[in-house]
Parts: sequence; C-alpha cells; structure tokens
Amino acid sequence: MKLAIYGYGNLGKGVEAAILQNPDMELVGIFTRRDPAALKTQTGAPVYAASTLPLYRDTIDVVLLCGGSATDLPEMTPQLAKDFCVIDSFDTHAKIPTHFAAVDAAAKEGGKLALISCGWDPGLFSLNRLYASAILPDGADYTFWGRGVSQGHSDAIRRIPGVIDARQYTVPIPAALEAVRSGKMPTLTTRQKHLRECYVVAKPDADKAAIETAIKTMPNYFADYDTTVTFISEEEMQNNHSALPHGGVVLRSGTTGLMGEHRHTIEYSLKLDSNPEFTASVLVAYARAIGRMAKRGVTGCCTVFDIAPADLSPLSGEQLRQSML
Amino acid sequence: MKLAIYGYGNLGKGVEAAILQNPDMELVGIFTRRDPAALKTQTGAPVYAASTLPLYRDTIDVVLLCGGSATDLPEMTPQLAKDFCVIDSFDTHAKIPTHFAAVDAAAKEGGKLALISCGWDPGLFSLNRLYASAILPDGADYTFWGRGVSQGHSDAIRRIPGVIDARQYTVPIPAALEAVRSGKMPTLTTRQKHLRECYVVAKPDADKAAIETAIKTMPNYFADYDTTVTFISEEEMQNNHSALPHGGVVLRSGTTGLMGEHRHTIEYSLKLDSNPEFTASVLVAYARAIGRMAKRGVTGCCTVFDIAPADLSPLSGEQLRQSML
Repeated sequence: MKLAIYGYGNLGKGVEAAILQNPDMELVGIFTRRDPAALKTQTGAPVYAASTLPLYRDTIDVVLLCGGSATDLPEMTPQLAKDFCVIDSFDTHAKIPTHFAAVDAAAKEGGKLALISCGWDPGLFSLNRLYASAILPDGADYTFWGRGVSQGHSDAIRRIPGVIDARQYTVPIPAALEAVRSGKMPTLTTRQKHLRECYVVAKPDADKAAIETAIKTMPNYFADYDTTVTFISEEEMQNNHSALPHGGVVLRSGTTGLMGEHRHTIEYSLKLDSNPEFTASVLVAYARAIGRMAKRGVTGCCTVFDIAPADLSPLSGEQLRQSML
Repeated sequence: MKLAIYGYGNLGKGVEAAILQNPDMELVGIFTRRDPAALKTQTGAPVYAASTLPLYRDTIDVVLLCGGSATDLPEMTPQLAKDFCVIDSFDTHAKIPTHFAAVDAAAKEGGKLALISCGWDPGLFSLNRLYASAILPDGADYTFWGRGVSQGHSDAIRRIPGVIDARQYTVPIPAALEAVRSGKMPTLTTRQKHLRECYVVAKPDADKAAIETAIKTMPNYFADYDTTVTFISEEEMQNNHSALPHGGVVLRSGTTGLMGEHRHTIEYSLKLDSNPEFTASVLVAYARAIGRMAKRGVTGCCTVFDIAPADLSPLSGEQLRQSML
C-alpha cells in the first residue's frame, strides 16, 4: 500500500517512523507547504511541495493528513478528499458533525473514501465508549485523560504576557478513578476528575503572582480545575519536560440481571510515551483499512465506528481466526 | 428486532434478561430440547419445543444459540445456520477454524448470516488483541484471566472419586501483571501467570490427601500451575461460592520511533459479577449487528473481527458521531 504524508510536524514524523514498522506499507513521499529543499527528513524520504500532490494521483493509495485541527484540517481534508483517499485526526469534538458533512460531500463527489477523527481520542477511546455502551445499556461512561501533556493548555499559558515557555500536564485524580472502578457509578464534577499541573518559564522581570492568577482564573481552560503552577528555569523545562507522554482511561460500569443485581466494569487504558507517535501508529493501521475498503468500492466519509476491525490487520481472516480469536 | 433463544441454561437466562434492557429488541420465545411444559421462565416468556423452530422461520430475525461448546454447538450451529441467522459463543479455540468452515458452508447454502465465537473470550478480548497488534506491530501480547470461576476446571475436579462438588478460581498473579504493565515485555511461563484456587466438598469418608494429589497432578488442567486445594462444607460452598464472577485483562506493550525508543501500553480489562449474564449482553448487542447486516444482504459466517462497531449500537451514525466520537 502506497502512502503519502501531508504536513511534517510531530505527527507527520510519527507516521514516517510507523510506516517502517509495517512491511506492507510504502511511503511515496512527504508533502509540505514549506520549502521542500529546506526540509530534512528523519529517514531520507523524498520531500515534495504540497502544490505538486495532484501529480501523484495515480501512485498514492492513501494520504495521511498531519495538520492541526484548528485551522489546517477544516480546509485541507475536504479539499483533498475529492482527489485522494485521506485520513485525518481532526479532534475538535464539537465541530465533528460539520467537518464530517464537508468531507463526506467532497469524497462522494470524487468517488473517494475518507476517514476523519482517527487517533486515540477521538479514535480508540471513542470505539471503547461505543462497544461498552452497546453491551451494557444500563450503565455510565467515564473518560479520564493523562497523566499527559495537553498541547492546547500549554499553548494557552504561553499566550500570557511574561511567559516564555509552559508545559501543562492533565492528571486524573486517583480517588475519582477508584470510585468509578468500584462500580458505584458516581456523579463527578470537572474538578473531581482531573488536576492541572503547570510548569512555567517566566521572563526575569515578569510578575509571577500575576501569571499564576492569570492561569488559575482562565475560563474553560483552568478555572474549573484545581491547578498548580510551578515556575522553573529554561534548562529544567528542556531536561524534564521535553517529552510528550499521554494516555488515559475509558470506563463503563453497568448492571445486568432482571433486577440489575450484577455489576460489571469495562476498562480501556493507554499509557503512552509519545502521544504523536502513538497517534501516528493508529493512523497507519487505519490507512490499511481505508485502502482496502476503497478497493472494494466504498466511498464517502467514515469514522472508526464504520470500520470492521479485520481491515486494520495485515493478517488474513483465516490467520486472524487462528491466532487471535 | 425479533430474537429467539435456543437453550435455557445460565447463558439463555442471561439473554432473556439482556433483551429487556434493549427497547429495540423483542423475544419471540425460548426453544428447548427439554419438555416445554416443564420449563418455567424468569420473565414468563413463551417456551416452545426445539423441534418447532422451523415454524417460526419468518418471524425470527436472529436465533441466539445458548448451548455448550463441547457437544451442542458443533452440531447445532451448522444445522440451524441454513434456515436462520444465528449467533453462538463457541469457545474451543483450537476448533474454531473447523467450526467456522462448517457454519460458513451452511449459512451460504441457505443465504443466511451467522456469527460464531461471540462473547468476551473469544469475543471482546479477541477484538482487543487485534486492534492492539495492528496499531503496535512491534510488541507483545498478554492475556490474563480472572479472578473468576472456570467451569471446565470445576467440572474436572468433580469427576475425581470422592468429590461431591467443586469450584475452581483462576487467579492472575499480581507480579506478572505488574511486569507486563511496566512495558518490559517479559517472557512468562504458565505457572508465572496464573494460580488455581480450588474449593472442594468431599464425601465424609473420602481420602482428602488423595483428592488433593489427583487435582494438583492433573495434566493440562492443574499440573503446570501452582494450585491450592481447600476442603469446605456443602453449606460453605452454597453460601460463598454460588456466584459466577469472572474477568481478565488483555495487554499489549510495544514500541514506536525510529529506534523503538518510545514505549506504549494498551490495556483492556473486565470485572464481571456474572460471567453468563455479561456474555449474554455481548451476544444481544451482536444480534443487533447480525440482523442489520443480514438485511443488507451479507451472508456466510463471520466473527467479531468482521463487524463494524457502529452496527452494535441502537444509535444512528449521526448520533454516534455527536455523542461518542
């Protein structure tokens, strides 16, 4: 299967590495809106100008779009879905229905297949919410994120005057997790579920108390949480906070029996050393599915909900039944 | 969707209860090879003789086969798959390819759709092995079962002379679980992964030492494990060991990055108060999918690997994208 990477940030680099782990995959090239000559890739993969992508229409099975959800993907995915089978990791939950409609129309127009919102949340976590709620209809769902770096929250801190750099960790609160795991189906507030840990490098003359207040009172991002702010040096930031770990837990607990007398808990958890590399690995597995489904004539936009698990694996149905069922 | 239950043991009773939790499902009746007049159902659902099932060909969407894997299902599923869409929970892993071939031929002959080996293992655990291995190709898989009652091991003890009743709990060993969770990808022997805890009611004049030896040295079942044997009274058995809890964990840990420098762990776990009721809930959710796929014209035999998650849910694609993605 011939893949192309469109966009070469952390996610694009992760896809480049993930393709090497899959012998049935081949990287045609990396397409960038920057100057291709100035881009040095990790593996020596060829780099092309984004504008030349249409020339490769017949040599690419699936394009993996590695742009950001805020501004890149809402334009990029519908635009490219007319001419290519594409996958993106669009993660602005509230805007998924709009994005889906735009991509679906474009893909159908071009007779192509597109997959949006692929990764781990949205993605694998979504799958687990769906499976668990279909199996235990009388129950409650919980999603915890972390311990991990939230890029959005880190960026929000960086926009405060006097801040040079920042890293925000989302941390699930153990007592909340335990209450859910016990099967008691507790009602939990935002504050009861997660802490926010912030590490900030401030300018030498900055008003640290003002920065701390600005963070802790920031609506949507921090005001509803217990938040800690720790000022550190640039060296400390580089030495201790340059990785991008993440993860989290999806739990559903529910009851069965005529009187709801039996409790069950389904738990799915991820511990990730590198958020972008893991997301990239999910994209590459789903690229296999999209390539196969497109060959079977499926068109339009789909999500991870619409893809049969067997299509993700390089193994045949027979091999899967023998080795994994 | 109109469902029928074929076989009324613990699993059939669980399906009867699970159908009540799903407003889009209707139970047509319970079909039994026993005397229908002698069978009292939990909900007052009608009971029919198994031999009359063919009369209901046009009023049943899916038949849930609730027989045993040892002797019932290998005959029952291929036989009924000619005339009905069927689901079974066939769990003899080594015989799945043979069973699949027999059911596939029958279902194709009759233009029907069948799903075999549905439940949690095989079933949900299999799904998680597949998803995780497709996403992290450079890694290792681990499955732990328990703490829970193994019916097969309990039965094996009951066949020893002098034994009145027995209950065997499979118990994962915490140190092994922790080693796997750490991401170290350890190599673990059978003995290192699980303990076997046995509770036995012996006849008053039985030779307990001989029973204990017979259990601990039984090949395949106990000889490869550290096994504890505790003799208890019939009252204690009834009071403390009448439930059928189970569960377990599927883990995959693997690496990403050009040098395999980042570790990731994917963990899926179940804690179940009632093994048969939870299995029944899985069957009912998959019955929804089989009914829908059959209406779309899909025929032959499939497994959970071949079913897109969206087909399990009563929600529409739009509702799923809005609420769960």
